[in-house]
Amino acid sequence: MFDPFTEVDKRAINTIRCLALDMTSKASSGHQGAPMGCAPMAHVLFTRFMKCNPSNSQWINRDRFVLSNGHCCALQYSLLHLMGYKVTLDDLRDFRQYLSITPGHPERGMTDGVEVTTGPLGQGISNAVGLAIAQAHLGAVYNRPGFEIFNNYTYCIVGDGCLQEGVASEAASMAGHYKLGKLIALYDANNIQIDGDIKVQFTEDVCTRFKAYGWNILKVEDGDNDLDAIANAIEEAKKQTDKPTLIYVHTTIGCGSLLQGTAKVHGCPLKVEDVTQIKEKFGLDPTKQFNVPDDVRAFYNGITTKDAEYEKEWNALFEKYAAAYPAEAKEITRRLRGELAEGWEKLLPTYTPADKPTATRKLSETVLNAICDALPEFIGGSADLTGSNLTKWKSAKDFQANDSGIGDYSGRYFHYGVREHGMAAVMNGISAYGCGLIPFGAGFLNFIGYASGAVRLSSLSKHQVVYIMTHDSIGVGEDGPTHQPIETFAALRAQPNLNVVRPADGNEVSAAYLQALTSKTTPTVLCLTRQNVPHLQGSSIENAMKGGYVLQDEPNPKIILAGTGSEVSLCVEAAKLLKQENIPSRVVSLPCLSLFDAQGPEYRNKVLPKGIPILSVEAGSTFGWAKYAHRSIGIDTFGISAPAGKIFEHFGLVPTEVAKKAKLLISEFPKMTL
Amino acid sequence: MFDPFTEVDKRAINTIRCLALDMTSKASSGHQGAPMGCAPMAHVLFTRFMKCNPSNSQWINRDRFVLSNGHCCALQYSLLHLMGYKVTLDDLRDFRQYLSITPGHPERGMTDGVEVTTGPLGQGISNAVGLAIAQAHLGAVYNRPGFEIFNNYTYCIVGDGCLQEGVASEAASMAGHYKLGKLIALYDANNIQIDGDIKVQFTEDVCTRFKAYGWNILKVEDGDNDLDAIANAIEEAKKQTDKPTLIYVHTTIGCGSLLQGTAKVHGCPLKVEDVTQIKEKFGLDPTKQFNVPDDVRAFYNGITTKDAEYEKEWNALFEKYAAAYPAEAKEITRRLRGELAEGWEKLLPTYTPADKPTATRKLSETVLNAICDALPEFIGGSADLTGSNLTKWKSAKDFQANDSGIGDYSGRYFHYGVREHGMAAVMNGISAYGCGLIPFGAGFLNFIGYASGAVRLSSLSKHQVVYIMTHDSIGVGEDGPTHQPIETFAALRAQPNLNVVRPADGNEVSAAYLQALTSKTTPTVLCLTRQNVPHLQGSSIENAMKGGYVLQDEPNPKIILAGTGSEVSLCVEAAKLLKQENIPSRVVSLPCLSLFDAQGPEYRNKVLPKGIPILSVEAGSTFGWAKYAHRSIGIDTFGISAPAGKIFEHFGLVPTEVAKKAKLLISEFPKMTL
Repeated sequence: MFDPFTEVDKRAINTIRCLALDMTSKASSGHQGAPMGCAPMAHVLFTRFMKCNPSNSQWINRDRFVLSNGHCCALQYSLLHLMGYKVTLDDLRDFRQYLSITPGHPERGMTDGVEVTTGPLGQGISNAVGLAIAQAHLGAVYNRPGFEIFNNYTYCIVGDGCLQEGVASEAASMAGHYKLGKLIALYDANNIQIDGDIKVQFTEDVCTRFKAYGWNILKVEDGDNDLDAIANAIEEAKKQTDKPTLIYVHTTIGCGSLLQGTAKVHGCPLKVEDVTQIKEKFGLDPTKQFNVPDDVRAFYNGITTKDAEYEKEWNALFEKYAAAYPAEAKEITRRLRGELAEGWEKLLPTYTPADKPTATRKLSETVLNAICDALPEFIGGSADLTGSNLTKWKSAKDFQANDSGIGDYSGRYFHYGVREHGMAAVMNGISAYGCGLIPFGAGFLNFIGYASGAVRLSSLSKHQVVYIMTHDSIGVGEDGPTHQPIETFAALRAQPNLNVVRPADGNEVSAAYLQALTSKTTPTVLCLTRQNVPHLQGSSIENAMKGGYVLQDEPNPKIILAGTGSEVSLCVEAAKLLKQENIPSRVVSLPCLSLFDAQGPEYRNKVLPKGIPILSVEAGSTFGWAKYAHRSIGIDTFGISAPAGKIFEHFGLVPTEVAKKAKLLISEFPKMTL
Repeated sequence: MFDPFTEVDKRAINTIRCLALDMTSKASSGHQGAPMGCAPMAHVLFTRFMKCNPSNSQWINRDRFVLSNGHCCALQYSLLHLMGYKVTLDDLRDFRQYLSITPGHPERGMTDGVEVTTGPLGQGISNAVGLAIAQAHLGAVYNRPGFEIFNNYTYCIVGDGCLQEGVASEAASMAGHYKLGKLIALYDANNIQIDGDIKVQFTEDVCTRFKAYGWNILKVEDGDNDLDAIANAIEEAKKQTDKPTLIYVHTTIGCGSLLQGTAKVHGCPLKVEDVTQIKEKFGLDPTKQFNVPDDVRAFYNGITTKDAEYEKEWNALFEKYAAAYPAEAKEITRRLRGELAEGWEKLLPTYTPADKPTATRKLSETVLNAICDALPEFIGGSADLTGSNLTKWKSAKDFQANDSGIGDYSGRYFHYGVREHGMAAVMNGISAYGCGLIPFGAGFLNFIGYASGAVRLSSLSKHQVVYIMTHDSIGVGEDGPTHQPIETFAALRAQPNLNVVRPADGNEVSAAYLQALTSKTTPTVLCLTRQNVPHLQGSSIENAMKGGYVLQDEPNPKIILAGTGSEVSLCVEAAKLLKQENIPSRVVSLPCLSLFDAQGPEYRNKVLPKGIPILSVEAGSTFGWAKYAHRSIGIDTFGISAPAGKIFEHFGLVPTEVAKKAKLLISEFPKMTL
């Protein structure tokens, strides 16, 4: 049972409200409306329920808190400050300022105690689903009778905006399917959005919808004042073992303001008079800003002191666990250090040109079969394309609810459903949990566009997640333009901190996995073919790890053919045709441009020297290739539906055409000027 | 009441099933499972309910049919053939072949009778919502007592995959909110997906979810055989005037096959023996392919004949309407011709440098206020950012359900909610309806990524839709990196058939609208600033319509500064600094690269001649700029949270830095080589 509420709780809540007010007032920007409405639920959650350790925000079994309505971060920063995280009053004063640790929306890695980056609506609640999945999985793998090593809860505050986003719908449906009992979301139902009363755009019955997903629904009628009702609901939710819980908390946006309950209080700083009357009404000194009354400070210090015990208890438990289960403890320790199992990379297959031509998606399957048993932290699945993406390794067991009869929480294979965006956002959450978890998700490359809201956050938040995207070009064939990526390579390459890898053959596929699994702060998109490609003379894991390299060369090449993925072998064939006409050439494979760029100018100039015409060949948009090549063969329209060979022919992506364009470039190059 | 079902209906359904089988068998690719399961509902719908005219597939008041599970298109093509659309048996034989009109997924504009491009899951049902919105709107605007000019229904077949996609959730929630009674979706509930039984990934209660959205729910227990139940349900749904209807139709995937009811029948061609036994079981000649028995042919011919009457009746009605309501009829006729109101473009405002610096989002609002009354076909709104996007023109009335009390169906302003993807997909549907409708949708530019699945289809399907995306750079300021687009320009520019316009000032904003509203087969993304920009000497609507032009020039320029949007004025300032050092320069504004490219090499070379160093300046990724510039100033990391001015400074996007880099480029240019 939670500690009873007293006057100091009310003062604390009003203090939080006023801290948020002072932050937005000082910054002349930001959102105080939702923080003022959510302060009660956040206070109750942090002081009565959250098991965390502010002096070590990385303690692995801490309860997770996600602020899905990230624009409400003045609330989160205030709480982190009061709780004793590394957020000072000066940091609050610096809200939204240059180089401060209190940016306009919460950013993972920027502020102590912030678990995930939120603000783009719908992402936080979806990350929370991932965090809860991670706990369920690690608990199932490592917990033993009497040893609840992983048993934390995941709490999330979520607003109307988040619940309108499709990504949240997808993730919520997954959460219900997986029966994630330790996931508890508090729905800040204030009926107000930027466009005004939600009746203009959002009249669905959210609770019934979540019930349909398989969630447990609870309601708090007066979320502004009724702390007992909030606490009772959370306590009730914690008893639920096989359903996530949505607690509908009816609140008043901007609670206390003269504008409370209106859209005007959402995101514009309040007038001075309003701020004054709010503080007076709340019994706080209206002449003071960033004021934490002593009793409130003392109260929260008490919470901080109590919280420190949780990790101590856990450490003691883990010590006993290590004695009883040394192998498991060793593995957990390794994973917590962020190390992969020693020697795993030796399991990566290598190939010679004598090996049979194979689709890179199939070569990816071979890698998964080779490494997955050695890497228990590598978990993932497909968005209903398992048989096409070839992502289910032989020994894989499904991650499913324990009573499902078709898997359990110790399983590592996910059927994400046709929910690309939810998949990506859930992966970000799994990655955010830590303990070395590296999630992967798969789909057709073209449909990574559905997920791009979350893929962007993979990069921004530096999540090590792996997107295994197959059917990476017109090589898709008959499925046609709706399924053939054209702009996708360019769109992904333009995104900061994302490695886009398009391997050309077996060795390059192995390199792609080596790169993906060792890039701790960069997500990776693997672009894999549907169709077979030959294993190339000159390819190697070592070469491919540089992002670009000379695959085949002749003395004094007259032209450089630079390709990626399935077009590298096309370049090799074209080079043969040129050789027949005594035109020496070089073939360069460029599986990953960002990695190639990172090698520095000296290496890059060695591979792609000035003064020799360079022709790039890629079955996708030529956009972006002018940086590397003087001319580009590619596709700047949408694709067509036909057998793949026909389509390659249609777009001139055949050896004869490449050779022809190479000769044309050779002839025109001397006249070309900058 | 519908005509009673007889034996020929059963034979027709089995014929459709076998046509689909023959198509996938001959193509050795494609999906027969769902067509075989959906054949009964499609047959019932097309023969008993659809009011359409196969000899004129563009008749404006036709009932719309959307196959949301587009992979099931063998079904649609077969029906279009039987119904008498311009789809021959030979076209069915050419399924998924090079240059055929029967591609792997339905494509708008490719096949007579196909309303929208589907296949990317979730899009079709969302388009259907847009189609139903269009009908409701046009009906409210133009119908008069006794003259139901626009009263068609929108029917949609939708599968499990579509219903898992977030975009469908968003659109379905909108449909319920708008009470679209003439929208009827048949849910092909076959419990099977590519990954097997839906129990592995999709255990939510779909019907309850749709009920929560405000839909009417009906069920058909035996969708394989019970034609009366299907027809009764559709008839019942048609009576519903203030709710869209979801008819849950329980079917068997691959109905008739030895593999029926399993994932194996989903998308792999069946074995010859299986095909034989299916045809025998169905009483069809197993030795024949693409066989339409005479009685089936005769039956469908009867439907075709009957269907021709609908348009005739409508034409007669419209003639009387034109007599009674000549102004309305004239406007409808103009819109049907695809013409805009004469002289509308004269309403576009123009500016001189004396005008006050203004944010381009604000200048966009000025344009909307100027033109919207003259262009009743231009309808749209914002994804809950109306006050930020500034998209609500003065006279705008909300599109809302007629009994909502806050607008009605004749309104033209949409509160899409925080549903970017749904908004875009719904816009595609509105555009697909025709009658000149040009939908627009607005949001923060960064969140167009959430919608990219549908933005791609705007381009592929050649929908004239307008994306009004504001807060287009780090100029967003304090909201920080989660809200600051970096890769977005590049990602959009790489997409075929999409005009990405980033206007620099008032004249360029007017030009952007002129371009958007006259590009009948190309969608447009307007990228608009949050912050003020000055009106520039040298800008004009005429110039900007070329996509790029010389804004300011000096004799013998030593450098060209090429910018877009808010960075053009930055280039102008930098040019002034250079002039102080006696360095003559040229400033080029490039509001729309695709349009600039389309001007041809001669014009392009006049604007950006060889031999003069070119420095591009844009507050976004430099990816893609090497095609136009020798060096680029931009941002290749994520942004930061701070006041906007600070961020521009941080990234060197200030006049002094641009001038410095210009001088560096001038000094290094002579040594630069290809």
